[in-house]
Amino acid sequence: MSLEVNPLRFAEIFRALTRDGATAEGGLNRPALSRAHLDARDTFRGLISECGFEAHTDGAGNLSAVWRCAEPDAPTLMLGSHLDSVPNGGRFDGTLGVTAAFEVARTLREAPHPKKMHLEVMDFTDEEGTWVSLMGSRAATGRLTEKDLAHPRGNPEAFVMALDRAGLTVEGILGADRSAEPPAAYLELHIEQGTRLERTNSRIGIVTGMVGIHMFLIAFNGQANHAGTTPMLERQDAALGASAFCLAVRRRVLEDFPDCVATVGQMKFVPGTFNIVPDQVTVFMELRSDDPHRAGQLEDALRGAAADAADGYGLTAEFNHLESVTESAMDPDICRLMESSCTRLGLKYSLLPSLAGHDAQSMARICPSGLLFVPSRLGYSHSAAEYTDWDDCVAGANALLQTAHALAISQ
Amino acid sequence: MSLEVNPLRFAEIFRALTRDGATAEGGLNRPALSRAHLDARDTFRGLISECGFEAHTDGAGNLSAVWRCAEPDAPTLMLGSHLDSVPNGGRFDGTLGVTAAFEVARTLREAPHPKKMHLEVMDFTDEEGTWVSLMGSRAATGRLTEKDLAHPRGNPEAFVMALDRAGLTVEGILGADRSAEPPAAYLELHIEQGTRLERTNSRIGIVTGMVGIHMFLIAFNGQANHAGTTPMLERQDAALGASAFCLAVRRRVLEDFPDCVATVGQMKFVPGTFNIVPDQVTVFMELRSDDPHRAGQLEDALRGAAADAADGYGLTAEFNHLESVTESAMDPDICRLMESSCTRLGLKYSLLPSLAGHDAQSMARICPSGLLFVPSRLGYSHSAAEYTDWDDCVAGANALLQTAHALAISQ
Repeated sequence: MSLEVNPLRFAEIFRALTRDGATAEGGLNRPALSRAHLDARDTFRGLISECGFEAHTDGAGNLSAVWRCAEPDAPTLMLGSHLDSVPNGGRFDGTLGVTAAFEVARTLREAPHPKKMHLEVMDFTDEEGTWVSLMGSRAATGRLTEKDLAHPRGNPEAFVMALDRAGLTVEGILGADRSAEPPAAYLELHIEQGTRLERTNSRIGIVTGMVGIHMFLIAFNGQANHAGTTPMLERQDAALGASAFCLAVRRRVLEDFPDCVATVGQMKFVPGTFNIVPDQVTVFMELRSDDPHRAGQLEDALRGAAADAADGYGLTAEFNHLESVTESAMDPDICRLMESSCTRLGLKYSLLPSLAGHDAQSMARICPSGLLFVPSRLGYSHSAAEYTDWDDCVAGANALLQTAHALAISQ
Repeated sequence: MSLEVNPLRFAEIFRALTRDGATAEGGLNRPALSRAHLDARDTFRGLISECGFEAHTDGAGNLSAVWRCAEPDAPTLMLGSHLDSVPNGGRFDGTLGVTAAFEVARTLREAPHPKKMHLEVMDFTDEEGTWVSLMGSRAATGRLTEKDLAHPRGNPEAFVMALDRAGLTVEGILGADRSAEPPAAYLELHIEQGTRLERTNSRIGIVTGMVGIHMFLIAFNGQANHAGTTPMLERQDAALGASAFCLAVRRRVLEDFPDCVATVGQMKFVPGTFNIVPDQVTVFMELRSDDPHRAGQLEDALRGAAADAADGYGLTAEFNHLESVTESAMDPDICRLMESSCTRLGLKYSLLPSLAGHDAQSMARICPSGLLFVPSRLGYSHSAAEYTDWDDCVAGANALLQTAHALAISQ
């Protein structure tokens, strides 16, 4: 099929959708529910209307453009991503996906072959977790609880005000669950935010699934003591255990778990003053793997590393699991469709797991889902340095189009 | 001389002065300017009056008991310590010293030999630095600035309220400088808060001087990055440099600087979340030595260790001196007097530097000063576990008495 997106029209939509919250450095600063984010949604609403789609907003603020095919009882093919960004982020993360989805929907609508699915282009709320990670897509798939909304990442009072400003309520968000009537499939295009595609010279990444993310709090317990009068060898210094553990995390992953990643992102010291030997240091550690078995093995290895680090300095360690995001699989049939689409288009692709979370993993709970990656220059993300060649963006949109078309005309 | 303190009277004063703020665990909870601290000062004022001394309070709240000898123009011998404690501290830190000073002054007053010095028993404000370290003695010796008072350790608004409640003002505190008319000498008894006396079976420590304390902020700079998508070997993880440095501090001191101590008491992570590779980690480090040359050598060694830690992980490090407390020497003549006093009393003693700060170091700036230590069981301090055998307390008070007597009858 010579079905292709319209590159100029695609660029025009991208320009329109990257205007609200644009920064001087060429990035985007529009955290979920901020003024700029609400403006971007207004802009999208305008485009939806201009292009003759129906605009829908659900109780979680998820904004979609709907086109109905000739058969009223047809299922829906959803394509989407998110318009919100991290603070001082880049233009491509999420917004490229919404743009591509919209351009794909417009192209499909014009394509000759009769569609047997309605099309819905979705902009999910707060994918980045300014307040609650993947909030909109989790709400839409019944994976959000009141407790999640009671413990937002930001200041809880500020969250309430932001919801109010956006016309949202907790009840409304929890009521946005559409899992009783799921789409037939969900497709998403997103930037890789890593360097695997670049390093393998691949134009497209076909995501097999999302890694599981497992978060732990490891408390090293020593004895607070006077930093002057306590001889070095009489100390039970919690900072030493935490430091040894931090180095061991890296070493274990590099030596035995090259298929995983693990990170120490924070250490909290008690009492935390210059002149007191630390009583307790709590380490925040997360590890990721697409294989739950490997994740468990790495966890065990790091439990051992924490115990060794504690023993080495006369401390005790408590290794506590905090929470996890379960691994999720993208649909194998959709992956195969994506492979043949890439082959047909002459695009070199890689099959790979996603090391970051995406709305597609929420949708995967209620319908077959697929996720395509385009390369990120040097892997930069979440900053104005975030960049994907426009040719790669167009190639990605075309791969998305081919896949969506194959689904939309089947059934 | 068979001059001795009255053990029963000594114990009675100690009981009276350890009542306000007493905790169920047997410690003291009376941070400077708290209700309990102000009550303890009222208690002391009562004792001063009952015992026929003159009570004086200066602009920094420093409370003293004065007895004047027969010669109106005589110089003053000051003996003192502090009644304030750390939160949930012990009974002996500071309060033992005020008690001993008062008992010594009462005994001296009764002793037959004519005194040629007035006696002043001093309770200095906020030695522990609940608000400003050594605040009262620094105010009395002109070593306190407006800037010091503008940057208290606790909450600045709470400091203002506490001053107000205690009837103190910034101007009053700064005006308490008596360095224009210093005492002839200053003597103090304090608990060791360490284990050197215990380990050498010494009854008394004769302090040669206070170590210098040098505080540094070492910032390790990496690159914030996604904890999922950034491969382990492509990270510039500031936490790794900080951790390697923390372990190196201990190693360098143990290997090459056994005469010094160094401590990492805090690390501040930026951005400090589970899912972002740390961009920057700032390490709070202090080192202590009674020898400025050795302190400088240790600082150089640790600068090198920071650079090595940074290089090892592709980071940069900025090693910045924050502030220092200069080393101070106790008066050699007073030390010799203390030695002969101990010898006369048959008390085994050690000459040693103090690894912690004391009011004596402020006083040393304006007059010859001396500090005696009594042993701390197992070195515990700043908790209810703080303990010194009463026999050792009495021995210390007698060593203080002999020294004070020798000074007071001379001149």
